[in-house]
Amino acid sequence: MYAKKITEFFDANGISFGDIIKVEADGISEEGELMPSTEANAENIIILKLKNGYNAGIDFDKAKITRIGKGIPAHEFPKAASMVKEGMPKISLIYTGGTIGSKLDYKTGGVHMLLKPEELLYEVPELSGVADIHVEPLSSISSEDMSYIEWQKIAERVYEAKKSGFRGAVITIGTDTMHYASAALSFMLAGIEMPVVLTGAQRSSDRGSSDAFMNLYCSAVLAAKSDIGEVGICMHKSSSDSECGFIRGTKVRKMHTSRRDAFRPINNNYIASVSSDGTIKYGESEYVRAGKNSANKLLSGFESKVALVKAYPNSDPGIIDYYVGKGYKGIIIEGTGLGHTPVSTEHEGYSWLPNIKRAVDKGVIVGMTSQCLYGRVNPSVYRNLRLLSSAGVIYCEDMTPETAYVKLGWLLGNYKREEASKMLAENLVGEISGRSLYEDFLV
Amino acid sequence: MYAKKITEFFDANGISFGDIIKVEADGISEEGELMPSTEANAENIIILKLKNGYNAGIDFDKAKITRIGKGIPAHEFPKAASMVKEGMPKISLIYTGGTIGSKLDYKTGGVHMLLKPEELLYEVPELSGVADIHVEPLSSISSEDMSYIEWQKIAERVYEAKKSGFRGAVITIGTDTMHYASAALSFMLAGIEMPVVLTGAQRSSDRGSSDAFMNLYCSAVLAAKSDIGEVGICMHKSSSDSECGFIRGTKVRKMHTSRRDAFRPINNNYIASVSSDGTIKYGESEYVRAGKNSANKLLSGFESKVALVKAYPNSDPGIIDYYVGKGYKGIIIEGTGLGHTPVSTEHEGYSWLPNIKRAVDKGVIVGMTSQCLYGRVNPSVYRNLRLLSSAGVIYCEDMTPETAYVKLGWLLGNYKREEASKMLAENLVGEISGRSLYEDFLV
Repeated sequence: MYAKKITEFFDANGISFGDIIKVEADGISEEGELMPSTEANAENIIILKLKNGYNAGIDFDKAKITRIGKGIPAHEFPKAASMVKEGMPKISLIYTGGTIGSKLDYKTGGVHMLLKPEELLYEVPELSGVADIHVEPLSSISSEDMSYIEWQKIAERVYEAKKSGFRGAVITIGTDTMHYASAALSFMLAGIEMPVVLTGAQRSSDRGSSDAFMNLYCSAVLAAKSDIGEVGICMHKSSSDSECGFIRGTKVRKMHTSRRDAFRPINNNYIASVSSDGTIKYGESEYVRAGKNSANKLLSGFESKVALVKAYPNSDPGIIDYYVGKGYKGIIIEGTGLGHTPVSTEHEGYSWLPNIKRAVDKGVIVGMTSQCLYGRVNPSVYRNLRLLSSAGVIYCEDMTPETAYVKLGWLLGNYKREEASKMLAENLVGEISGRSLYEDFLV
Repeated sequence: MYAKKITEFFDANGISFGDIIKVEADGISEEGELMPSTEANAENIIILKLKNGYNAGIDFDKAKITRIGKGIPAHEFPKAASMVKEGMPKISLIYTGGTIGSKLDYKTGGVHMLLKPEELLYEVPELSGVADIHVEPLSSISSEDMSYIEWQKIAERVYEAKKSGFRGAVITIGTDTMHYASAALSFMLAGIEMPVVLTGAQRSSDRGSSDAFMNLYCSAVLAAKSDIGEVGICMHKSSSDSECGFIRGTKVRKMHTSRRDAFRPINNNYIASVSSDGTIKYGESEYVRAGKNSANKLLSGFESKVALVKAYPNSDPGIIDYYVGKGYKGIIIEGTGLGHTPVSTEHEGYSWLPNIKRAVDKGVIVGMTSQCLYGRVNPSVYRNLRLLSSAGVIYCEDMTPETAYVKLGWLLGNYKREEASKMLAENLVGEISGRSLYEDFLV
């Protein structure tokens, strides 16, 4: 709470929370949005949210305060319907939450989801020149809270859009688990043969450095104009605003906590790039072309009793029994190197081998991936790997741990155990490359 | 087993397993080491281990077989003692196992540890011009079976070497968990002020493309001639044989299952490079200089009841209770993005928050890292992160999950709980960078 003299000053000068104000004190001048006071014992400190996203605190008694502009409240935005242009490619914009739709939260001073879909279109008027965009608000869920239930809802919406004659779909979604979602949608929508583009933002749209608008624009261009018939992620390709890249949904990973070009192809390369003027360039990677696949079925089952566990030095193999005891039907191991777990019998209770054997004997599907992320697991190079392989572990080729986890959950949600087991190491939607792409390291 | 006519042919022509032979058939000519027959129902197929490491099978009845050279048995190598040169910089070569000391196993056809330390020196005669190398065979353990017990033994040997006046140490070790070991040694040997260089090989030393010899040579150069006073990893810097790079032991990760340049700095850059002619070039990254630190103590305690768990969509928060129930004293979470776990209360039993709170209340130290690997966790950007932070989760800055895991095990093995908790997010040996190095992404 601000001191009474401050709230009186605000009232007298027509200043509300969220307004852009200028504060000058001690020779420093800062501009930003006026925040409520949240700190105890600091009722004289004016809190400003700067353009770079940081808060600044300035002593009211020493400051000269000028109101520069009004914060735009949500209700003042035009309706999204007015952005719809007849005769242009029809695309569906499915809004699920995440930073791309977030603004600062005046209650906590953190970032909170506030922006409505029509506000997004208001912020990017270029979108109206690209496509006839139909906004479908689906949820407002943080990336960390996304589960297979949301993936299923999104898949259903995209499937309905395809059936209704839409040319493509853009899904705005939180970035942290976006690559899990893109893998899930790749499998659930196998054979969809239209561009299904997931996008988001690393910087919220109230920050000057936000990537939200360009990501949304490039994604809409891909959905409206590309001949891509796959699910993938479209985000910044470099830290500049020059172009965005489209990466296959099963071969992608968030590789940086905060850079705008955090999403990277793993064991693959970019399928396409979109420059800021809307030009699409296709890369060297093969992809499925858009088409009119009428045989496409929605297969959105998902078995939630699948776990992803990491093997590492001193790790406890009892974790396998824990999941088996809870009735889990599948376990993906993030092994070391070419796909190892500890197997030594020198340290008591240290080998994972007996635990894995017990799980496999009980019908649990155990898949192996590598925590290296890049490269391919291989059960035939080392003796210890052969031991694991003969215990019934399925080596998941060059899939990331995350993609293998999502794939196994999807397989067990839609197929019988034996089929799922067989399909895990088979390529279904481009998630397994036929050869090791050594040149595609750290792209 | 080969057919009787084949073994008779081998005997008549003085050919033994391991000999280099040439096999010509159907216009194809292959050279490689003769392997025993391991396949059932294929007693007429000659198995060759080719230079690229793959096996070839050729029908004996159609083949012309010529013996080219003899495989060198281990006992024919000269003793390592003869390579010692008085008056040169004295370094310790601690041999622990791994691919760098592995040759193919005639029993299984896989790769198995066979090479003795003196064989390594025989293979790299250049080493005798670099340093007075004292070989210390410590163990012959596969990378996946390394535990804190081996790390402690290595630390003791290095510490003894420093006390005995050695200038530096090279440790040959399996690559898969090398970065866990380098982190452990960085903490255990804090303040050692001499070059402690871990190295290994991605291709076994019986393969033409092996990186074993150059890695060993460059590591010996660093130990004998560099002014680096830290623990780090020296491996190929690119896929060519032009140079090796030295990376801080706490800021490094194996990022590819099989490339020779698989080891990469994470949230840092190379400290130095060594070219194939032995020239050392120092990079832009700061490092501790070698010195005569007499205050250096060996702190090799390690608490094995520390776990590394991954949080992901649909993940089971019960995993926290599992470890708490087993008496674990620390848990490092590999969260999503800036350091998230699911916290939604919409899906029953889905939020990790109550489980984390219970663990912290019981005195378990819970640390947060990011599965993005690159970047830095940050508890203050999003509301859900603030919830986790206020539950007592310690945000581990820009440490990799692996380094944070090793650090917490080391802290709890040497300090009281309160001290360990405080030190987890403090920089001790360069494991935490003072600022985000955005430019050091995917180096």
